[in-house]
Amino acid sequence: MIHDLTLSDVLSEHARSRPATTAVVDGDLRLTYPQLDARVSRLAGALAGRGVTAGERVLWLGQNSHAVLELLLACSRLGAIFCPANWRQAAGELRFVLADLEPRVVVWEHSETTAALAPGTGPVEAGAPEAVAGGSAPGAAAGFAEVGRAASWVRAGEEYEEFLAFGEMHDFPPVADTLPVLALYTAAFAGRPNAALLSSAALVAHSSSLLVVRQMEPDFTFLANGPLFHVGTMMFCLATLQIGGTNVFMPAFDAEELCRLVDAEKVTQAFLFGQMIDAVVAANSGGKYDLSSLRFVAHSAEWDEMTTPDDSPWCRSKMGGYGQTEVGGMLTFLGLAPGAAGFAGRPSPLVQVRILAPDGAELPPGEVGEICARGKSLFSGYFARPDLNAAKGAYGWHHTGDLGRRESDGTITFIGPKLRMIKSGNENVYPAEVERVLKAHPAVADAAVIGVPDERWHQAVKAVVVPRPGETITEQDLIEHVRTTLAGYKKPREVVFAEAVPKKGFTPDYDALDEQYGGGGYPGV
Amino acid sequence: MIHDLTLSDVLSEHARSRPATTAVVDGDLRLTYPQLDARVSRLAGALAGRGVTAGERVLWLGQNSHAVLELLLACSRLGAIFCPANWRQAAGELRFVLADLEPRVVVWEHSETTAALAPGTGPVEAGAPEAVAGGSAPGAAAGFAEVGRAASWVRAGEEYEEFLAFGEMHDFPPVADTLPVLALYTAAFAGRPNAALLSSAALVAHSSSLLVVRQMEPDFTFLANGPLFHVGTMMFCLATLQIGGTNVFMPAFDAEELCRLVDAEKVTQAFLFGQMIDAVVAANSGGKYDLSSLRFVAHSAEWDEMTTPDDSPWCRSKMGGYGQTEVGGMLTFLGLAPGAAGFAGRPSPLVQVRILAPDGAELPPGEVGEICARGKSLFSGYFARPDLNAAKGAYGWHHTGDLGRRESDGTITFIGPKLRMIKSGNENVYPAEVERVLKAHPAVADAAVIGVPDERWHQAVKAVVVPRPGETITEQDLIEHVRTTLAGYKKPREVVFAEAVPKKGFTPDYDALDEQYGGGGYPGV
Repeated sequence: MIHDLTLSDVLSEHARSRPATTAVVDGDLRLTYPQLDARVSRLAGALAGRGVTAGERVLWLGQNSHAVLELLLACSRLGAIFCPANWRQAAGELRFVLADLEPRVVVWEHSETTAALAPGTGPVEAGAPEAVAGGSAPGAAAGFAEVGRAASWVRAGEEYEEFLAFGEMHDFPPVADTLPVLALYTAAFAGRPNAALLSSAALVAHSSSLLVVRQMEPDFTFLANGPLFHVGTMMFCLATLQIGGTNVFMPAFDAEELCRLVDAEKVTQAFLFGQMIDAVVAANSGGKYDLSSLRFVAHSAEWDEMTTPDDSPWCRSKMGGYGQTEVGGMLTFLGLAPGAAGFAGRPSPLVQVRILAPDGAELPPGEVGEICARGKSLFSGYFARPDLNAAKGAYGWHHTGDLGRRESDGTITFIGPKLRMIKSGNENVYPAEVERVLKAHPAVADAAVIGVPDERWHQAVKAVVVPRPGETITEQDLIEHVRTTLAGYKKPREVVFAEAVPKKGFTPDYDALDEQYGGGGYPGV
Repeated sequence: MIHDLTLSDVLSEHARSRPATTAVVDGDLRLTYPQLDARVSRLAGALAGRGVTAGERVLWLGQNSHAVLELLLACSRLGAIFCPANWRQAAGELRFVLADLEPRVVVWEHSETTAALAPGTGPVEAGAPEAVAGGSAPGAAAGFAEVGRAASWVRAGEEYEEFLAFGEMHDFPPVADTLPVLALYTAAFAGRPNAALLSSAALVAHSSSLLVVRQMEPDFTFLANGPLFHVGTMMFCLATLQIGGTNVFMPAFDAEELCRLVDAEKVTQAFLFGQMIDAVVAANSGGKYDLSSLRFVAHSAEWDEMTTPDDSPWCRSKMGGYGQTEVGGMLTFLGLAPGAAGFAGRPSPLVQVRILAPDGAELPPGEVGEICARGKSLFSGYFARPDLNAAKGAYGWHHTGDLGRRESDGTITFIGPKLRMIKSGNENVYPAEVERVLKAHPAVADAAVIGVPDERWHQAVKAVVVPRPGETITEQDLIEHVRTTLAGYKKPREVVFAEAVPKKGFTPDYDALDEQYGGGGYPGV
């Protein structure tokens, strides 16, 4: 017990250590750490009153909100598990989540989709038993209708405030920090998404590594404008909590509102990349808002002038590294490997990385294998997926499902998802490698590479290329461009031109690409 | 297993991630991380050959050396416990350590004291059973003679190199990071010192907090010139290991040699305070050495010119905070609380602090109680002290034995050791508080406060004051100075002037002061 530190414990300490610090800003709501702590205790009491005990699940169906952090912390106080669902999902997908996770309490924001799901407002009210998408899931044995009825549904806003206000504050007994506290749905295996479970210990460890690499200090103010159901935003929200900073919530990205909030709250960092930054620059073209509190990586002349350059390893050259939900966020950081050969940098100070062969043997530098990991920030497995968990943890190492290589300087290169490896002849081709070469061509704006079935070679390499506006380029130019850089078997057999590459977050949506351009036959699938 | 990260694991990762980085410099010896990793595996094999299995102890009797880090890491690889003993101790004190810890292997540097202890070189050789100092210790049941004979004694230098060279490299099985790996002897309770046991998990967590507050990066080079048997030096050595930096070892502080090493190795930080800094400035008065790689806190005009100011929270204002071996090093940091009311700053991001009454109840801000803690960096108890461990962990909180106060801004003030609280009339007087006021007087160079037995008031406050050279000051001046600042019962009844205050490390040696100036009657003892 003396060694445990749950997210709830972090809050309890801040409530004492930082009585005057603003913990949360969301619209008109401003909470100091003691106020947040008191609300979380009430909320935990209210959840306990609805049957949320250790190990039970609480689901959030809505956009970004202070309630996401409050529910997470209240679940931590109870030893329960909180899941912020991707509210952009279709009704069928959310039904799967409900059936899979079997939450005791659902807190929901009104939308066409959620209203159709909530008892008393939609078709479930009629009492008709409904089919559950992906009903073969172990956790999905109960039909959605029963699940929906078993859970308490609390509508966000006034109803949530009332629910919270009537919660009883207890002296909650200590909770082990190895218990899962956060469930984030992530990559699908065998056709269904899986909820990665992260313990307080893992989240606290991951926050520590972000604090080190981002050099976060107690005056850090994070604007959660990216989706909190993704680890990329959640990890900064939690690191900000850990160091005792301020979390500002906005429901979703809006360039003008973001500028206003950065100015008003003196935001240190927001979740901004590429085109979002361009949108912010455009929204603030007149210099109406003071964005100088943002400490950021260089992007464009206008952006660099509006913001303050950050010299922490996180921002010093290229942001980021390699990560996934299952490792708590980031596994490797570019900032820990300036001038590195590997495209993903070096591991966080709190993990180990190995490149393993399928038989569990470690591969020497230069050879491609699966990126595997151990360490303090790793997840506790997927909710209710014993077989998958055993496979992912083979040989005592978490198998990321991604291929990578240790370079001779010790840094890591991310090659691409194992399932997307292309087999052409007897050779392995990794889409990411070919994509990098294609995107380095001055006339190419974006590119994605897939494998298409081929009678003679098993698969052939096919590239989908988005030319830069005003540039002319031929299929033969691009094939030749790749041929001069990579081994001959890696060059595309075919190049098609497109308006855009379909995306899933920051990465190409390979399922959509395969469907549209005839991909298939991957040996790993 | 997937979540474990031992010190040995940290080294294993660096051996892969940083193949060209210098891990260790000690005299002519330079080791890259792969070289250090290979030596540690051989050393672990050699130790295993002498019966060092999980839980067994290995003792170092010598000054600072790369061997200290190697032995620690080899013990981590085996699940064993390493103790670097205070080699400055007298023979009787070292005999106590030997009998208390019952090490399997002792690695020793030759000195008059250690030679007298090592079998084959001193009185033990004669076979006479010797009395064991502190023989009442649970771990001290065996006489020293037997202990000394049971252990393998390996002399540092050539014999150690040979021992290591013949070690067999194994694939060592995974070790849980919750096992103790480092034993540091610390404050005496009930008249005998106790070995605080720190696990890999605690040390890795503490390193993380130092990495955050000191903003350490992979190019960090630490010069271990302070004693490695104290947590103050060891904690920076381990944080440097954690981030993949370079540890430079020197046997003991020597101003000129320190300058040479800083220049040659581009040292980022050494273990330097007060008069040591003055000695370094004097040794480098001609500017012979380039010390600009040192990133340090301001000290004097000459020092500031020789070094580079560091803007990390650790160095920004006043260095440090409150700590002790039992919390892994630092519990609170001044750098996390700029402008704070409390003299010790705010807790590390990985711990919780509570000010508790003797009955375990939490005290409100402004009230003095015992500083208690929980968190990731805390120790695992003392070696072979079940009763003391139960007392120190009462109510599920580690009791530091020090009194403190939570200020209204949430920061912590360290008041002084519980055992040194003075009871005068019905009032509590804390020496550190009175000392601070005395030392604030412009004519005072140093001061210490003790309690002397008093028939009427139980104890009376007595101050030992060192005047600044050339200053004249009277007892009455000083009593009046305290009276105008603190409550009347806190003013010294008597002030004596002295040449120096006897010290134990950085703090007054209160035992010596009591003996010399008639102190006693403390209610906490």
